[in-house]
Amino acid sequence: MVDDPRGLRSQYDALIGTEWLDDDPEHARVRIPMRDELRQPIGLMHGGAMSSAIESVCSRATALAVLDEGMAAMGQSISVSFLRPILEGHAEVLARARHRGRTTWVWEAEVHDAQGHLCALAQMTIAVRPLPRPAGS
Amino acid sequence: MVDDPRGLRSQYDALIGTEWLDDDPEHARVRIPMRDELRQPIGLMHGGAMSSAIESVCSRATALAVLDEGMAAMGQSISVSFLRPILEGHAEVLARARHRGRTTWVWEAEVHDAQGHLCALAQMTIAVRPLPRPAGS
Amino acid sequence: MVDDPRGLRSQYDALIGTEWLDDDPEHARVRIPMRDELRQPIGLMHGGAMSSAIESVCSRATALAVLDEGMAAMGQSISVSFLRPILEGHAEVLARARHRGRTTWVWEAEVHDAQGHLCALAQMTIAVRPLPRPAGS
Amino acid sequence: MVDDPRGLRSQYDALIGTEWLDDDPEHARVRIPMRDELRQPIGLMHGGAMSSAIESVCSRATALAVLDEGMAAMGQSISVSFLRPILEGHAEVLARARHRGRTTWVWEAEVHDAQGHLCALAQMTIAVRPLPRPAGS
Repeated sequence: MVDDPRGLRSQYDALIGTEWLDDDPEHARVRIPMRDELRQPIGLMHGGAMSSAIESVCSRATALAVLDEGMAAMGQSISVSFLRPILEGHAEVLARARHRGRTTWVWEAEVHDAQGHLCALAQMTIAVRPLPRPAGS
Repeated sequence: MVDDPRGLRSQYDALIGTEWLDDDPEHARVRIPMRDELRQPIGLMHGGAMSSAIESVCSRATALAVLDEGMAAMGQSISVSFLRPILEGHAEVLARARHRGRTTWVWEAEVHDAQGHLCALAQMTIAVRPLPRPAGS
Repeated sequence: MVDDPRGLRSQYDALIGTEWLDDDPEHARVRIPMRDELRQPIGLMHGGAMSSAIESVCSRATALAVLDEGMAAMGQSISVSFLRPILEGHAEVLARARHRGRTTWVWEAEVHDAQGHLCALAQMTIAVRPLPRPAGS
Repeated sequence: MVDDPRGLRSQYDALIGTEWLDDDPEHARVRIPMRDELRQPIGLMHGGAMSSAIESVCSRATALAVLDEGMAAMGQSISVSFLRPILEGHAEVLARARHRGRTTWVWEAEVHDAQGHLCALAQMTIAVRPLPRPAGS
């Protein structure tokens, strides 16, 4: 798993259980292991958990790439199609930055289950903006 | 807050902290109180938490409406635009079913912060399908 | 029908047959009368004609509102759900600017047929950028 | 260019100027040559023309694939991100069916200009339904 030298993991990702596998914008990757806390009422993995993992991987990989230029990354929009339910194992998100503009990055992402079935397809736009200064600086 | 007589709340919603306010498809409503576990690295509420709440309220309100016909509701697609960050207070989702078809319901949803600012806009499609039988039945 | 004092109608809109009814960002409105050139193979109005009308009305109403500040409006993303086919009469698009930011406007739009049935729901993001200078200026 | 043995081209595509290059769901392809009738007010190719071409290629390739089973294809939703304007040459859409379900096909599509630049990214869901009978049959 990749390190977090610059503090770009979040408490929210700890809550969801996101495991960071790759930060490369060509093939950024995270995994969320299935557990009961991620189930919706019928017992499937909640789509919100998948959306969360997609947003985390796209935001973090963009942030890591633009941080040295003093920029921050924030989710601007996400669109997800759910194709196949996940009942056990894990959800693995593979994301690729298809457009790296000055003010927005646009990502395509796909979610597979542990058997390699395609379970969701997504498109995400990340806004790139000057990093907010810490209070008092 | 509304009751859950038919078990349509999920462990995932307990994890996120979703509070159920209204199940009426004309003005379904949930709220998620801000807490540190919902923050992304910069400290804002993670967009995935908002997407999760949107999906929960649309799915549950559809499920409650079609349950008596022996049907289940599953998220088919979600599209969210994030307009304004949420730092404290809560996120409140207001959702309205704009199309109630035989096989899909289409929802519009909006997210406001505790001051009433519009923070996100969403569209969600919920697939309506025959209820899966419990295993062993 | 509204005038076009500042040349914000396009040849493309003439091709589609867009009629401009209202430019107010609270209730911008265009109509496209059905004709055979707008049919897809089964005979319904092509979804692309509806998407075109949605993009035109959102772009033009944004452009008119920001033109005096020296800004131009360009479509950044569009998302449309098609709910009900249109066979005859017309498609009328009603659009409302829900977010008017410094760099983006976000619109919700709906398409009705001549009988008033809801036929499509859309969300569109328009980028607001400094107006390109004419070549040679 | 591919033939149209089964009448799946439309008058609307003739209006837009769609050229059919490939119907294979793995790499379906159409092209629209730029001409003045496709320009929006600033002179760029109207996004609606690109959305139209995306919808045409995804619908037609799905329709051709399911026609022999007595099924028809209709656009259910489309989502397009516009990345780079097209001023001249043409727009070429390359689409790939990522999910071929019983009731929906989900496509990813990308639009390139004549220089090969990526100009738009899209996701489209096509509903697959029993073919309507011709009137009088």
